[in-house]
Amino acid sequence: METKVDVSTKKYVFQFGGGKADGDKTQKDLLGGKGANLAEMSSIGLPVPPGMTLTTECCSFYSEHEGRWPIELEAQVRAGVSHLEAETGSQFGDASNPLLLSVRSGAAVSMPGMMDTVLNLGMNDTVVDGLAERSGNVRFAYDAYRRFIDMFGDVVMKVSHDHFEDAIDSLKVEKNASLDVDLTADDLKELVEQYKAIFLEHTGQMFPEDPNVQLRLSINAVFGSWESDRARKYRQINKIKDLIGTAVNVQAMVFGNMGPNSGTGVLFTRNPSTGENKLYGEFLVNAQGEDVVAGIRTPEDISKMESAFPEAFSQLVETTKRLENHYQNMQDIEFTIQDGKLYLLQTRNGKRTGASAIKIAVDMVEDGILEKEVAIRDLVEPAHIDQLLHPQFESTETYQEDVIARGLPASPGAAVGQVVFSAEHAEEAAAEGRKVILVRTETSPEDVGGMNAAQGILTSRGGMTSHAAVVARGWGKPCVAGCGDISIDYGTASFTNGESTIKEGDWISINGSTGEIIQGNQKLVEASLSAEFDRFMSWVDEFRDMNVRANADTPEDARRAIDFGAEGIGLCRTEHMFFEGDRIDSMRQMILAETEEARRAALDKLLPFQKEDFRAIFREMDGFPVTIRLLDPPLHEFLPHGKEEQDEMARKMGVSIDAIQGKVKSLAEFNPMLGHRGCRLGITYPEITEMQTRAIIEAAVELSQEGVSVLPEIMVPLVGTVEEFVHQKTVIEKTAEAVFDEKGSTVEYLIGTMIEIPRAALMAEAIAREASFFSFGTNDLTQMAFGYSRDDAGKFLPEYVNQKILKDDPFQSLDIEGVGQLVRIGTERGREGRSDLKIGICGEHGGDPASIHFFYELGMSYVSCSPYRVPIARLASTQAKLQQN
Amino acid sequence: METKVDVSTKKYVFQFGGGKADGDKTQKDLLGGKGANLAEMSSIGLPVPPGMTLTTECCSFYSEHEGRWPIELEAQVRAGVSHLEAETGSQFGDASNPLLLSVRSGAAVSMPGMMDTVLNLGMNDTVVDGLAERSGNVRFAYDAYRRFIDMFGDVVMKVSHDHFEDAIDSLKVEKNASLDVDLTADDLKELVEQYKAIFLEHTGQMFPEDPNVQLRLSINAVFGSWESDRARKYRQINKIKDLIGTAVNVQAMVFGNMGPNSGTGVLFTRNPSTGENKLYGEFLVNAQGEDVVAGIRTPEDISKMESAFPEAFSQLVETTKRLENHYQNMQDIEFTIQDGKLYLLQTRNGKRTGASAIKIAVDMVEDGILEKEVAIRDLVEPAHIDQLLHPQFESTETYQEDVIARGLPASPGAAVGQVVFSAEHAEEAAAEGRKVILVRTETSPEDVGGMNAAQGILTSRGGMTSHAAVVARGWGKPCVAGCGDISIDYGTASFTNGESTIKEGDWISINGSTGEIIQGNQKLVEASLSAEFDRFMSWVDEFRDMNVRANADTPEDARRAIDFGAEGIGLCRTEHMFFEGDRIDSMRQMILAETEEARRAALDKLLPFQKEDFRAIFREMDGFPVTIRLLDPPLHEFLPHGKEEQDEMARKMGVSIDAIQGKVKSLAEFNPMLGHRGCRLGITYPEITEMQTRAIIEAAVELSQEGVSVLPEIMVPLVGTVEEFVHQKTVIEKTAEAVFDEKGSTVEYLIGTMIEIPRAALMAEAIAREASFFSFGTNDLTQMAFGYSRDDAGKFLPEYVNQKILKDDPFQSLDIEGVGQLVRIGTERGREGRSDLKIGICGEHGGDPASIHFFYELGMSYVSCSPYRVPIARLASTQAKLQQN
Repeated sequence: METKVDVSTKKYVFQFGGGKADGDKTQKDLLGGKGANLAEMSSIGLPVPPGMTLTTECCSFYSEHEGRWPIELEAQVRAGVSHLEAETGSQFGDASNPLLLSVRSGAAVSMPGMMDTVLNLGMNDTVVDGLAERSGNVRFAYDAYRRFIDMFGDVVMKVSHDHFEDAIDSLKVEKNASLDVDLTADDLKELVEQYKAIFLEHTGQMFPEDPNVQLRLSINAVFGSWESDRARKYRQINKIKDLIGTAVNVQAMVFGNMGPNSGTGVLFTRNPSTGENKLYGEFLVNAQGEDVVAGIRTPEDISKMESAFPEAFSQLVETTKRLENHYQNMQDIEFTIQDGKLYLLQTRNGKRTGASAIKIAVDMVEDGILEKEVAIRDLVEPAHIDQLLHPQFESTETYQEDVIARGLPASPGAAVGQVVFSAEHAEEAAAEGRKVILVRTETSPEDVGGMNAAQGILTSRGGMTSHAAVVARGWGKPCVAGCGDISIDYGTASFTNGESTIKEGDWISINGSTGEIIQGNQKLVEASLSAEFDRFMSWVDEFRDMNVRANADTPEDARRAIDFGAEGIGLCRTEHMFFEGDRIDSMRQMILAETEEARRAALDKLLPFQKEDFRAIFREMDGFPVTIRLLDPPLHEFLPHGKEEQDEMARKMGVSIDAIQGKVKSLAEFNPMLGHRGCRLGITYPEITEMQTRAIIEAAVELSQEGVSVLPEIMVPLVGTVEEFVHQKTVIEKTAEAVFDEKGSTVEYLIGTMIEIPRAALMAEAIAREASFFSFGTNDLTQMAFGYSRDDAGKFLPEYVNQKILKDDPFQSLDIEGVGQLVRIGTERGREGRSDLKIGICGEHGGDPASIHFFYELGMSYVSCSPYRVPIARLASTQAKLQQN
Repeated sequence: METKVDVSTKKYVFQFGGGKADGDKTQKDLLGGKGANLAEMSSIGLPVPPGMTLTTECCSFYSEHEGRWPIELEAQVRAGVSHLEAETGSQFGDASNPLLLSVRSGAAVSMPGMMDTVLNLGMNDTVVDGLAERSGNVRFAYDAYRRFIDMFGDVVMKVSHDHFEDAIDSLKVEKNASLDVDLTADDLKELVEQYKAIFLEHTGQMFPEDPNVQLRLSINAVFGSWESDRARKYRQINKIKDLIGTAVNVQAMVFGNMGPNSGTGVLFTRNPSTGENKLYGEFLVNAQGEDVVAGIRTPEDISKMESAFPEAFSQLVETTKRLENHYQNMQDIEFTIQDGKLYLLQTRNGKRTGASAIKIAVDMVEDGILEKEVAIRDLVEPAHIDQLLHPQFESTETYQEDVIARGLPASPGAAVGQVVFSAEHAEEAAAEGRKVILVRTETSPEDVGGMNAAQGILTSRGGMTSHAAVVARGWGKPCVAGCGDISIDYGTASFTNGESTIKEGDWISINGSTGEIIQGNQKLVEASLSAEFDRFMSWVDEFRDMNVRANADTPEDARRAIDFGAEGIGLCRTEHMFFEGDRIDSMRQMILAETEEARRAALDKLLPFQKEDFRAIFREMDGFPVTIRLLDPPLHEFLPHGKEEQDEMARKMGVSIDAIQGKVKSLAEFNPMLGHRGCRLGITYPEITEMQTRAIIEAAVELSQEGVSVLPEIMVPLVGTVEEFVHQKTVIEKTAEAVFDEKGSTVEYLIGTMIEIPRAALMAEAIAREASFFSFGTNDLTQMAFGYSRDDAGKFLPEYVNQKILKDDPFQSLDIEGVGQLVRIGTERGREGRSDLKIGICGEHGGDPASIHFFYELGMSYVSCSPYRVPIARLASTQAKLQQN
């Protein structure tokens, strides 16, 4: 049985306007971001054209009931229209005093360019004349009419915009007009007739003159666009989930194209690239809003507006301050000036680059606009930090002679790749593991897949707020937009600056911070971080109460980890140490050994190297804990598999190649992931554990004697039973005691284990009675809990994510509902076994913000991730705390 | 803090004798089996020599406190000795009227020959003369003395028995005596002096004359033997766990070797091989008990005792009836006749063969000795059933001309293997997967590892109750004992019957039911089952309330399953069907196909074959459910990997070998176990699921129309997320609906899933809302929960079991504490999602008795196992029920 609701009272339509509103900014889920903010702005008395918002529940109902409306919606929409008529003093469909409407989508999360919009709704053959008369501007009226037919035809009836564009282009040629504005009122009247003919030809229907029919069809088009392929794809790439649909905003039209005393613009209240506290945006005189966003006409900088519209500009400046204070965030605003009067059409938190996010957060705190907690919680996303840690060019000077063009610095950062000219090619190349730069005249929502797959984006047309620029900035992906220096020929798959020609597959580099396009594969280096960054991160650390460590295997890694703010090493893998230089020879000798004695002899040779590694790492990590994992991979990984290398090894070691091949064969495994590795090695060959323990403890004692504060934590990998752990613990303790005796000095150290086998999580209570710490190895835990081999899952995982069988790749973001249960069980039972158990996580999920929130909720002591993700983890763990409260 | 007990009152020693006892038969954990039964027999008035039992807690204390006794033990032992003195009217260490003692081990579970025994304790230089005087038999007294020195030296002081044996052999040569009995009293006096010298030489100590010292050291030796290597090994092989130690039984000696009116014997109250209701055993006149068990002197059949000891024999017969009625079980008894008087030294439930167990159970129920429930619960073990299902020779007539020798039919059944002459070689061969027959002159506890590893055992010496015979019968392993026809030469690793010589590595066959030794590798066939078996199993089914199904992939398997009493098929694997004949070609065509269309074309060719298979299986299973698992293995398993086969495939299919090798390469996986298999295939290639569903449903509808009752259950493998299941369920339902439409007729069918991925167990509630049944795939669940690849774990699992890191091989017996948690979680949550969820298990654990008990406790609907294990599973599930109540 379905749940019954009292349909007679269910509110599907929220009205706003005239300093009042039914809703407010907290109702984004129901009203969408745009609708909630329009209501909010209206409530606080800002000049918003009156309107109504159809809730996201209408869209959801529509999707689930094959395009039907909830029965009460029709009446509520009618009431909304009446409200607009009352607020504007005009009548919907009344030629003498017509009310014209805009219909816009708006989901809870912003999806730029993804949803469809219809303007000037309510136009028909009689209304157009009424509008002409009332505005005293026939040309304006017919221009509005022809735009409406075009948009309505395109968006609602799926008649390609190209047909209408062809018609206007032909007319311009015929009339010898170079710009749209050169067309006269009569020309536009003629165009309206042509547009109606195009409409009839492609839809088989007459253009609907009834404004109520226009409205209903347009609302349906918005509803329908929610499930369009491009909308789904955008949501998938951006991991937008759990939304039920889009709201629909129906508003009284205001016209920026009513003449030279009108205009329209978009702006950010601060610079979205740099964070500079100065309005950043563009405006166009005598234009409708879509003209700016679409990037077709090149608009003017917002700063020029002051002279053209002094009064409106000063009102705008004051409004932006008010909005920033009200929303406690930098705003992205759309506005229109109709006949000198300012109207706000939209406000929302502005997308920004990482550098901008940091600067705005720091500035706003220092200017007293908001508290540090708010800045940390709301103004900087982990992805922003990620962006800042993205590579830059090694030098912008050395490449100067290779610069072939310059465009707008639309999204900062450096990118290098092979040129491709279609989103499809970009996706194919990325699938093959190739790096590409997507080059397009301009981008459209259909291209998002390819844009996401590319390293960077270059467009020859469009401004700083064009589709390419907005999307790329959101992703922190380098973009150079509006690069008029180049001309693209899709036919020959090449572009030229007039001198040199770059073909598909050629390497270029783009600098999204400067707008430079550089020939060839320029060298990238790591980002350097600003003083504001350090300041912001110091605030983050003030509030943080979960430690962040790094996974680091070398002294260099350790140093970098400290630089990035790590408070210890959560995972030091020892196997990498066996590959360097001559060490691999001793390692192989150990593997080939047939007796314990021979194995010990080979291990004795490895001991000094390993000890030296630990000495260097402990020195770097003075005062911080270092968790060292004992040998983990199966031994066959250390043997050569090619004939040539085997020959060389045989020669070097003075054994027959048969002996080597025999060993390779005997060590081969069907499923190495589930084979003879981890502590299973340490149990069959305790002498390996002994050697590693000796290296760790000797290094620790020596450095401790030199005055370094060492905190070694020895970690047994792949434990599945408490007996395994006890076996290894006994070997470790015995060896450590022996070293302490020899050295006549001791150090404090811990023995703990990875929890990476499902059974270990289930047996955590018993294991914790023996182990001093747990470190969740969520990579292996995910592999085993799902039964997915990371190396093989590429054959089905992408399709699983595509088909929504999985919400995310569980190796990127922890599968909280499934694998997370094992982490929770392991944590809770571990604490039952030992109340002061130290619990951390060292899988790659340790650097994933969503996963970090989960680990924080479980009360883990620390997360450990790659050094580059340490700042991200620091922010995410503080946010987890602040968002919890 | 340790738990404190009131040590002053702790009872460590339990006395018995004179028609009374401190303990009873229920106290096996504390008193051991022997001690509990001695107490019981004493209580019910049977003639038991008085004694005392030191509890298993003493042994445990001794092991845990480096050989110390609990402080109160000494006084309690002294009190026990006083009790014996009072009961026997003799004095410990008093030469004029000496009390002599036996010291025997006895744990809660019988371990034949594993623990050490000392007899005649209390002997010294003065006591021997007193004994001689009192018994009027100087020879007997010195024989008892020299035996004591030998045993005490060997068992307590670890002086090899060989040294004493050498001395007696030399003396026999010197005195020209062929048998021990040919030695005179003076000879034995001389021997005692020699033995004492040997004792001094090998221990560095004088032989201890103080009886109290003798007693203390002997008790300690029994305690110590609990942790001996052979005892540990026996416990490991026999999965004896959770015992804390052995009890020690100290009893007044009775002598079977006091002259011709004395004797000793062992017997089973019924025939342990066949179950025939007739005493079965052996006795020796004028001998001590150990002479019979050790198999050194060949004893006489028990039936001959009647004429030698008519009175004692009739008392013995009456006693055996009484014991059977009292214990409600067939008994294994040791007795001694001292001077015509019968003493019982031990009674315990007798080990028996499967055939014997069944016959005894049926006979005892029919004779009104016990109830059916008791017979089912206590008299037949699942291993007995297993034994009965063991192979037999195809014909015993055709091999007659190859019979090379005959011995005693010591443990029934047929075995074939290559000859080995040491336990060590047997273990090595088994590790290599070779089948061997272990051939020894006689076996000893040191050989148990090799005996277990062998297919069968052949000894040239020893009787039906020799070590080899008793151990082999316990295991249901074929054994021919005391085969005097052959002579074994360990030096040349061969044996001969005088005509032909069999060398190590040659094949022989042994018939443990007839005692025949046959040259060569004789053909084995399945066992045929007796009428008693059917009767017994029908009783089992009367009480059973969990269904037993079989895993069966072919009509032949299905028929066999029905014959063995299966009530449905719990797992029908469909992939095997793709390997037969030409089918593999179509399967390979399907795999090579690059388009869905081509794949469908190949699948269309497979459809009729698959459908025909299902028709045949449904017909066999008329009225029973058949659970069919959709394709599970990764596709690369269907492609040839050798160059030659690839060439042939290329030729056959008219494609290049490159195409085939390319496909093999592209399908190769690092960890196939965790790769693209199970429902992951059905999701990437839904057309496979469609074809299989079509084959199942078409077959079902057609047979249903022919009047067969079909109950198909379609099972989706390797589900980890509910979304996977829903995807496949949708495909299956759509296909089934289409078939129903085409056929104009429907059948009832279910769609369910395997629970074999850890995550699936955790998400069971959500999955159960969609699935009609669960079948736990405990093989894969064990692999993933432990992170063990079955194919690779051989490199460490045996060592894990050896080192007790694992109690059992988790692939043989479910790891209840770990993997069992997932089964429990899956079961409980599954029921929350769907209260009428059908739950079964189809891993190999479905045929393992211990695992079946667990599944029964969870309330599963059924277990499914291989057809041969169906009767075992039937018994185990009824026992689970009866043992629960």
